[in-house]
Amino acid sequence: MAKSWMDARQDDLEDRYRAVRGLSDALTAPLSDADATVQSMPDASPAKWHLAHTSWFFETFALRDHVAGYKPFDPRFAFLFNSYYEAEGARHARPLRGMLTRPTLAEVRAYRAHVDDAMLRAMGMLPQAARALVTLGLHHEQQHQELLLTDLLHLFSLNPLEPALFGAPAAAPVDLPGPLHWIEGREGLVEIGDDGRTAFAFDCEGPRHRTVLHPHALAHRPITNGEWIEFVEDGGYRTASHWLSDGWSWVQGENIEAPLYWKKGEQGWTRFGLDGRQPVNPAAPVAHISLYEADAYASWAGARLPTEAEWESAALNIPPSGGNQLDGPGCPRLHPAGAGSALGQMFGDVWEWTGSAYRPHPGFRAAQGAVGEYNGKFMSGQFVLKGGSAATPRGHMRASYRNFFYPHQRWQFTGLRLAKDL
Amino acid sequence: MAKSWMDARQDDLEDRYRAVRGLSDALTAPLSDADATVQSMPDASPAKWHLAHTSWFFETFALRDHVAGYKPFDPRFAFLFNSYYEAEGARHARPLRGMLTRPTLAEVRAYRAHVDDAMLRAMGMLPQAARALVTLGLHHEQQHQELLLTDLLHLFSLNPLEPALFGAPAAAPVDLPGPLHWIEGREGLVEIGDDGRTAFAFDCEGPRHRTVLHPHALAHRPITNGEWIEFVEDGGYRTASHWLSDGWSWVQGENIEAPLYWKKGEQGWTRFGLDGRQPVNPAAPVAHISLYEADAYASWAGARLPTEAEWESAALNIPPSGGNQLDGPGCPRLHPAGAGSALGQMFGDVWEWTGSAYRPHPGFRAAQGAVGEYNGKFMSGQFVLKGGSAATPRGHMRASYRNFFYPHQRWQFTGLRLAKDL
Amino acid sequence: MAKSWMDARQDDLEDRYRAVRGLSDALTAPLSDADATVQSMPDASPAKWHLAHTSWFFETFALRDHVAGYKPFDPRFAFLFNSYYEAEGARHARPLRGMLTRPTLAEVRAYRAHVDDAMLRAMGMLPQAARALVTLGLHHEQQHQELLLTDLLHLFSLNPLEPALFGAPAAAPVDLPGPLHWIEGREGLVEIGDDGRTAFAFDCEGPRHRTVLHPHALAHRPITNGEWIEFVEDGGYRTASHWLSDGWSWVQGENIEAPLYWKKGEQGWTRFGLDGRQPVNPAAPVAHISLYEADAYASWAGARLPTEAEWESAALNIPPSGGNQLDGPGCPRLHPAGAGSALGQMFGDVWEWTGSAYRPHPGFRAAQGAVGEYNGKFMSGQFVLKGGSAATPRGHMRASYRNFFYPHQRWQFTGLRLAKDL
Amino acid sequence: MAKSWMDARQDDLEDRYRAVRGLSDALTAPLSDADATVQSMPDASPAKWHLAHTSWFFETFALRDHVAGYKPFDPRFAFLFNSYYEAEGARHARPLRGMLTRPTLAEVRAYRAHVDDAMLRAMGMLPQAARALVTLGLHHEQQHQELLLTDLLHLFSLNPLEPALFGAPAAAPVDLPGPLHWIEGREGLVEIGDDGRTAFAFDCEGPRHRTVLHPHALAHRPITNGEWIEFVEDGGYRTASHWLSDGWSWVQGENIEAPLYWKKGEQGWTRFGLDGRQPVNPAAPVAHISLYEADAYASWAGARLPTEAEWESAALNIPPSGGNQLDGPGCPRLHPAGAGSALGQMFGDVWEWTGSAYRPHPGFRAAQGAVGEYNGKFMSGQFVLKGGSAATPRGHMRASYRNFFYPHQRWQFTGLRLAKDL
Repeated sequence: MAKSWMDARQDDLEDRYRAVRGLSDALTAPLSDADATVQSMPDASPAKWHLAHTSWFFETFALRDHVAGYKPFDPRFAFLFNSYYEAEGARHARPLRGMLTRPTLAEVRAYRAHVDDAMLRAMGMLPQAARALVTLGLHHEQQHQELLLTDLLHLFSLNPLEPALFGAPAAAPVDLPGPLHWIEGREGLVEIGDDGRTAFAFDCEGPRHRTVLHPHALAHRPITNGEWIEFVEDGGYRTASHWLSDGWSWVQGENIEAPLYWKKGEQGWTRFGLDGRQPVNPAAPVAHISLYEADAYASWAGARLPTEAEWESAALNIPPSGGNQLDGPGCPRLHPAGAGSALGQMFGDVWEWTGSAYRPHPGFRAAQGAVGEYNGKFMSGQFVLKGGSAATPRGHMRASYRNFFYPHQRWQFTGLRLAKDL
Repeated sequence: MAKSWMDARQDDLEDRYRAVRGLSDALTAPLSDADATVQSMPDASPAKWHLAHTSWFFETFALRDHVAGYKPFDPRFAFLFNSYYEAEGARHARPLRGMLTRPTLAEVRAYRAHVDDAMLRAMGMLPQAARALVTLGLHHEQQHQELLLTDLLHLFSLNPLEPALFGAPAAAPVDLPGPLHWIEGREGLVEIGDDGRTAFAFDCEGPRHRTVLHPHALAHRPITNGEWIEFVEDGGYRTASHWLSDGWSWVQGENIEAPLYWKKGEQGWTRFGLDGRQPVNPAAPVAHISLYEADAYASWAGARLPTEAEWESAALNIPPSGGNQLDGPGCPRLHPAGAGSALGQMFGDVWEWTGSAYRPHPGFRAAQGAVGEYNGKFMSGQFVLKGGSAATPRGHMRASYRNFFYPHQRWQFTGLRLAKDL
Repeated sequence: MAKSWMDARQDDLEDRYRAVRGLSDALTAPLSDADATVQSMPDASPAKWHLAHTSWFFETFALRDHVAGYKPFDPRFAFLFNSYYEAEGARHARPLRGMLTRPTLAEVRAYRAHVDDAMLRAMGMLPQAARALVTLGLHHEQQHQELLLTDLLHLFSLNPLEPALFGAPAAAPVDLPGPLHWIEGREGLVEIGDDGRTAFAFDCEGPRHRTVLHPHALAHRPITNGEWIEFVEDGGYRTASHWLSDGWSWVQGENIEAPLYWKKGEQGWTRFGLDGRQPVNPAAPVAHISLYEADAYASWAGARLPTEAEWESAALNIPPSGGNQLDGPGCPRLHPAGAGSALGQMFGDVWEWTGSAYRPHPGFRAAQGAVGEYNGKFMSGQFVLKGGSAATPRGHMRASYRNFFYPHQRWQFTGLRLAKDL
Repeated sequence: MAKSWMDARQDDLEDRYRAVRGLSDALTAPLSDADATVQSMPDASPAKWHLAHTSWFFETFALRDHVAGYKPFDPRFAFLFNSYYEAEGARHARPLRGMLTRPTLAEVRAYRAHVDDAMLRAMGMLPQAARALVTLGLHHEQQHQELLLTDLLHLFSLNPLEPALFGAPAAAPVDLPGPLHWIEGREGLVEIGDDGRTAFAFDCEGPRHRTVLHPHALAHRPITNGEWIEFVEDGGYRTASHWLSDGWSWVQGENIEAPLYWKKGEQGWTRFGLDGRQPVNPAAPVAHISLYEADAYASWAGARLPTEAEWESAALNIPPSGGNQLDGPGCPRLHPAGAGSALGQMFGDVWEWTGSAYRPHPGFRAAQGAVGEYNGKFMSGQFVLKGGSAATPRGHMRASYRNFFYPHQRWQFTGLRLAKDL
């Protein structure tokens, strides 16, 4: 069994609790009540909902289940802020999350304070099983921090005023990286998947298992905006033969012509971000592309997407908390590749689409209880992404980490790295 | 030409401006920023949008067009807050109105103050054409006051917490009114429609014209909740023969079983309102029913809906500002019929569905310019409602007033009064 | 009560039965089994279904109800071929009519023969009530003859091969008619609606009633294709101000740029018909336009659509079986207006959209029993059309005849005649 | 490169051509023109279309490209009967295939005869590349034979008369098979995928490659209808925890309660088939289930679906043309498992859903040219099925064969075999 988070060492749990919870508060500090309430599409959730739902997780699985006499802040919140745990009973329909103008943002902040207070008082007395759930809850909250930022970005992008949530960052360097280098990967039997010895991993990351790699190489860096513009200008979005059949239907049905948030104006391409509308930086990795787009680009380039195993095997010896990740409130900024031709930017900057469907690793078993609904039930129709992005909180990432989205989704910081057969 | 509002006497224009604008402010005083921002369905608009759009009307048609040197509060607002005036250029898509978390409610209130300040300074110097547009703008704002309340009601109804915007009113009297009495109407040639001599009328209310009434009678009061429950319990919603064909499709497709906001619990029927969830008062007029429901009830009762001409002719000598209408902030409350058998409750309480399609009166011409888009272009597929409701600002109503909605819509305070052939 | 068809004189009923039923057979003689089976859209029905449904009407309301010992051809057909009579029980869902590859066309023809045989044997002995229902059934079948042709036209239009059901007719004369003349209509009190003394009328055509006409004039002929092309080339389909609001949404949502079946090629405009694709004849009346298009044209032309009462009053003294109507199998062909400036082409050629919603005449009561579902329940959301078309069987038309369609529908031979206020 | 079909030995090509083409004719002999024309859903195609499209394949890739002077039967057919080959130009929209009442079934049969005549005359002179395409075309036609049967089944199921295309077969034996036995599979490195030495394989079946199997066992036979009824009666369709998240949405959104074509009556469960409506045979394998249902059953049973590699590895030494497959016209009939506990029914009876997403094998390259669009572009969102069914023509199947459908689709003869970790 791979539920490694059950065994996590948790000496610093209280510190980590304060740090993670505090980051959510900091990220949402500039929000108005309305900013925090509106839901921009069924795939996204209001910021207020993220703040409340992550608190509900601790209130339910730690306080309710393990702290005698805990009194819930408001018993009606369980219905409002359960996300998808069928075992936890009925819940508010996802597409209606944006109707909840009450409780207000201030009330949700009070809810957070109530839960934090109870959690910090209880922390020292929690049994080991509860401490494991707290650890899970913190990783869960980090996931929601990234979603919170990308959901806000989507919301603000629908406002014709194009407001900037954060002040514009200093301009990124625009030295164009050199051409792609190909890094040969391991071949033959390798082991991937969580081995249960890391401080924490989600159930779906394990178990550790053997798999076979075939001769292949990975590009030393992600594809840049500049390279993507070449694809666009070569008619990439209008050439059926580059595309998966479902992708071609999507491109035509949705009139897709560029990455999400891009617009072509008289001054060339711009993109919208949490810092408002800015010129596209040709040196930075392309972001906000779907799997369909990533696959079409690879096809156009005569290459392919890496498999999850190829990617994970290449990342095994790279420190996961390196790279360009989220360290605090502010606008996530994508960095150009540095000089050199070594394998780089594996962690941070952009999530990298793999060509692997999100299915269970051999021997996978879901965690027991309600938290077992966390990952396993989403294992159809989605693809694996690896490596985290500039919006992923530092400390959250691992080589074995499996993010997953449907192939048409692109409101996350999703990009691509090419692979090829040797 | 029927643009009677062009000739309105306007001595009290400044006072009326203050009163009408002030009521909008008062009605929205209890709203949070989020309450004012969220759009609950494409048919509805956010409260903030109502506040801004009505201000845009004055800013555009009075200040921009008639006040030299007026500087708009924010030139981008024209795009955001134009509703449907094609002549005024591109505008924000209606279903996306709820995405506008910025400007905030506070900023919109500042916008209102800016416009009010400019308007009140300019008022004395406005040419007659502009004063007519101000009058139009005030009636326009009164319409939006009612929509604002019903849109908020719809929004709050989607919140599982069922918040009450206003404190619950004192319980209404529950003396059940006696049986329906039938009031014989005029027969033969009558004149209806605005004659251009009222202080104000919308273009679609005129011109005054002759029409023929056939022998008929109107019920002396609207149908009550108690009577409606009989219809429900007699299987009214499950009996195809009562329904228009489109209505039957609607009932089955949407699983309609009762008026909007009604729920059946162990204690009997309740309804949601701006005062929260409350027991259905059997003595009060039924509200929140569609034309389809009204027509089905009439069919079940062996009667029919009044025509617009029958209704208007009967109302000609009744003071329009009488009845139960909106006098200030607070929860609109529907009154039971009083004792007696005279024609009553023609104005106020509930809008009364007529059996007349909303089409132009003979000789109708739309007003010139952008404001000519106000009414005429909506003349397909909708039905006329008459008399106003408890949410209609007092002073806004006339016998010739023509409200119009699609036959499936029911989020307004819509009810019915029966008619029959003699 | 206006059920005038109850009293119809029926001496020639058997002859008329043979003639009407024979025309259905003749119209469908060139069809393949597949042509007769496929449903091209939910609004349309397969030819086989028309053939069977009209037979079911006689089998049910005449043979089953009035002929002792009648044995139905196949008891399962009642479920398949009931159209919308709720009183007659469950029935096959309309959008699935095209799934009925069995019974075959040959079997449906056998069904018709079985019913015809029983009907003709029973005819002499039918009680008066049954004879009235037979008369109704024949008018009902004539309606379906026109639908059958227009449904086939729609089906064939979706076949890229654009097959011609009938051989191309001799080319129509192309002498362009002269300019529109305006014919002043009656003013003041007039009587319209069926008076119960005609040989037959549908229940919705009555009762006869008084109404008021206001000063107006009608164009002496319908608008031609040539005139329509001017509207197109003047940007008529791209100018919001000409359109009803719902119409503008329809034009934009459906990318409407010309009448249904029109295409612009290198040789100019062509249209598809039951004679295949042919050049648009500029002299002939425009057909296959929606109410929205008709209304937009009128608005562009500074005119309006006639009301039903204006049209009917003008038609009262014109023989209804005159004009260009359907006399036998073959391609309906629209005739150019002749020389002269008298009121012409009121009957035949194209159905003329009126500006009147399809609502009950004053005093209307639906017929009793299942056949009472015939008309009344469709009285919402639709507009009245008058006069019949080149596809309407001769003998079927009356001044009081009320056809009705939704404002976006245009697969019938629908055109327009202008009116204006005087 | 894995295009093994390029190298196929083809001595018997002419005989095989006659046999395969003849089976299509025989399968469709009982169809009426209408049966062959109607399209029951966008996923399905009309029988006539299958007959024509398979002929278009030979006409295009063999006759047009390799036979000098070949004159197409009708040049317009390329537009009508191209399925999805973008490289071959524009084509008729898939959901409109059912509108093609012309050409008639008789004309399509003439088209087939024309192509067959030209093919058989040319066969001896075809270059090797063309012979490889003929082989591909025959395998392609066999695929369409199975689709043709399942598409007809779907069409007939929508006819309330529930016609039987074929006479009912003799009743199947109903001896219930004994309990499941578990057959331990290979462990460690294995090779799967087409090795290029088989007579024919589709491009997606290769290349041969190594993969790792983890300790596991397969059930010795598929799950039966009787076992499925236990799942139904245990509330399997109403218990969220058994289901993938997308599956649960599907079950609730579509009101799924049993396999496709099943109905519960007073006599128990029945199913509709090409032999009409018949009692469910508890001894036969369950069919017409989606991946979602298969996965939910496995979850309920405490097991899982096999991976493609597990299944293929187990099947490597089993003769693929054994089992219950299609040998000629008539109703496919599913056989109960025989006695014994050896691994059985791997080929034939029902397609077995695997838990493997349909993605490329390592090293996969699509075939060159238009036929390269055959498989690769469908590699997103679908799952692999293995082993063929009772409707798969005998001779068409291989262990490496990869069928693929979306997880909600179930109109094929799709069933399941359980697997478990050891």
